[in-house]
Amino acid sequence: MTAATTPIDPVALSAELIRCPSVTPAEGGALGVLEQLLSGAGFACTRVDRGGIANLYARWGARGANKSFGFNGHTDVVPVGDAAAWSRDPFGGEVVDGVLWGRGATDMKTGVAAFAAAAVDFVRQTPPDGAVILAITGDEEGDAEHGTVALLDWMAAQGERMSHCLVGEPTCPNVMGEMMKIGRRGSMTCWFTAEGVQGHSAYPHRARNPMSALVKLLARLEEKPLDQGTDHFDASTLAITTIDCGNPANNVIPAKGSATVNIRFNDAHSGASLTEWLRGHAAAVQAETGVRIDLRIQISGESFLTPPGDFSALIARAVQAETGVTPEYSTSGGTSDARFVKDHCPVVEFGLVGKTMHQVDERVEVAQIHQLKSIYTRILKDYFA
Amino acid sequence: MTAATTPIDPVALSAELIRCPSVTPAEGGALGVLEQLLSGAGFACTRVDRGGIANLYARWGARGANKSFGFNGHTDVVPVGDAAAWSRDPFGGEVVDGVLWGRGATDMKTGVAAFAAAAVDFVRQTPPDGAVILAITGDEEGDAEHGTVALLDWMAAQGERMSHCLVGEPTCPNVMGEMMKIGRRGSMTCWFTAEGVQGHSAYPHRARNPMSALVKLLARLEEKPLDQGTDHFDASTLAITTIDCGNPANNVIPAKGSATVNIRFNDAHSGASLTEWLRGHAAAVQAETGVRIDLRIQISGESFLTPPGDFSALIARAVQAETGVTPEYSTSGGTSDARFVKDHCPVVEFGLVGKTMHQVDERVEVAQIHQLKSIYTRILKDYFA
Repeated sequence: MTAATTPIDPVALSAELIRCPSVTPAEGGALGVLEQLLSGAGFACTRVDRGGIANLYARWGARGANKSFGFNGHTDVVPVGDAAAWSRDPFGGEVVDGVLWGRGATDMKTGVAAFAAAAVDFVRQTPPDGAVILAITGDEEGDAEHGTVALLDWMAAQGERMSHCLVGEPTCPNVMGEMMKIGRRGSMTCWFTAEGVQGHSAYPHRARNPMSALVKLLARLEEKPLDQGTDHFDASTLAITTIDCGNPANNVIPAKGSATVNIRFNDAHSGASLTEWLRGHAAAVQAETGVRIDLRIQISGESFLTPPGDFSALIARAVQAETGVTPEYSTSGGTSDARFVKDHCPVVEFGLVGKTMHQVDERVEVAQIHQLKSIYTRILKDYFA
Repeated sequence: MTAATTPIDPVALSAELIRCPSVTPAEGGALGVLEQLLSGAGFACTRVDRGGIANLYARWGARGANKSFGFNGHTDVVPVGDAAAWSRDPFGGEVVDGVLWGRGATDMKTGVAAFAAAAVDFVRQTPPDGAVILAITGDEEGDAEHGTVALLDWMAAQGERMSHCLVGEPTCPNVMGEMMKIGRRGSMTCWFTAEGVQGHSAYPHRARNPMSALVKLLARLEEKPLDQGTDHFDASTLAITTIDCGNPANNVIPAKGSATVNIRFNDAHSGASLTEWLRGHAAAVQAETGVRIDLRIQISGESFLTPPGDFSALIARAVQAETGVTPEYSTSGGTSDARFVKDHCPVVEFGLVGKTMHQVDERVEVAQIHQLKSIYTRILKDYFA
């Protein structure tokens, strides 16, 4: 075994990445570290930088191979928050008593390090009949406009594609191996503005009260659950996050008011069907009250599902083999870049315990990083077996 | 006929009062003008000044007379607002083309001038067997703490009393003579604060949403009309005047929210019965949602009614005789000092057309002021006939 084939230590690589201050949108040197490692192992690397964001595409094997396994992840991190509150330097990458500390220790420099280390060792030791692809972005924690979407667009234009993709986000709530994600709920936000006619509170019939209209509308939206859940999804949820009018006078009915609702929806709905539902209720209340109700809707992501099958079973078997824990197929949580990948190929997510993500003192047991590399390695072996 | 018995010109007296800048709480010289006039006509005048507010009590005839007719009104006025927007000096008291201009031209320096002029001429020309009382305050447009209430308290302590009272507020919506008030609805305001548990909008079951609780509560308060009106009152009304949370994040359920409702209620309710109703609904929503709901309630006035009878008929006959219009017995509108007087004696309100009250370019036709003096004079004559 030559020096070139010494296995990559995913903990040392994680620490090196943590030491790169890559708070979105800064690249911070992180993608450079990975590019050097991957190029050295025979990966064809391309920087796909867009709109001030750095992204890295790396492929081992032939373009257009019949079988190409992709990993997706990000090296950008959220800000450290109150730096003085950290017990360790958030960009120190220190290992103390078997624990690696720093921003990105769970979300998700460790995940990237684990799949990069697994991929490099795998292609060196057992070169597969196919391609191994790493699509790594520097814009997942930001508005994601120039991140994974830009990478996927570029790939499509170049004829680059993944047959299947694993996103390395942290997916386990408490125990390593307990959960993988086979989909995500969709997310949308609706801003309502209600414009009525101002008036004295003693004569409400001469005014058109926008707050009454909003109360009527919001009460109807919350009246019944959106659904009871579906085969692979929890029930959809709707949350009123704001109602405001800023009226300083208690005896005056204000002319305008506003409200916001955020909806997380499963595969019983779509952004379009919910938009229609919201518009229908708003129009009904407008007709009943004479208060004009306008809507602005932003769909952050549609719900999606990679139906349980051979691919998810392969991932689950690898997790079980390495951890002794059978992962639950889940669709819970917020959004991830898997919502973009799903338009290109089947996608599943599996990664570390995410407990401390986005928090002060983000950290992870180094044993889990080694375990994660082993899981990713087993997945590659089984995939190309 | 001597100079002393020349009839008092209610228009000149109105203009003189308008020229006194008596924006609440300033006396501005207005009560001084009236005190001089009334003293000169044999009224016993007492300044009942309290808490920086000037009030004037004037009685002609014996204290404790069997029959004592009282007038109540105020010389304080609301601010001019945008002074530059006025067509005439708001404190000029100008008469142009038969119209008197200025702040207080309808609310209600003219009303005070009309009843003072009527009272002075009446006692001089046909001294009655009884007392004529004028209870004039400088604090009706403010918080009314040291105004008519202080006057009435002082009167009770001194053994001074009115058998009946006429409040000279503007009562006619459009046409002189069309409306008198025999009561008023009560008014109360309720401030709700809802305190729940903050949380991410993707997991509403982990939060307790104060905005949902407020929507549920307010929707129930507005679900059914409070009543359908009573014999002499319109239906009670409830108006949501504020809902706010000031939450800057669309994906966060806020911890706290607030809302305000203003209720105008008839004699089917009382401040106490409505307080109980509001507390009951708030407690139910708190029990259902786990969101703590606190209430602060302010009762500005209970509803009251001077049931139609001899007194209101006497007023109506005088109005009809002088204007040719039969006044409607109404209980509409906001609150007035009649809500305090009603605890002491039967009270009815009649005055000018109030269209421009509180507005820029407040003004009134001088013919209406003369008419009002004639009505008040006829009321005095009939009362003591």
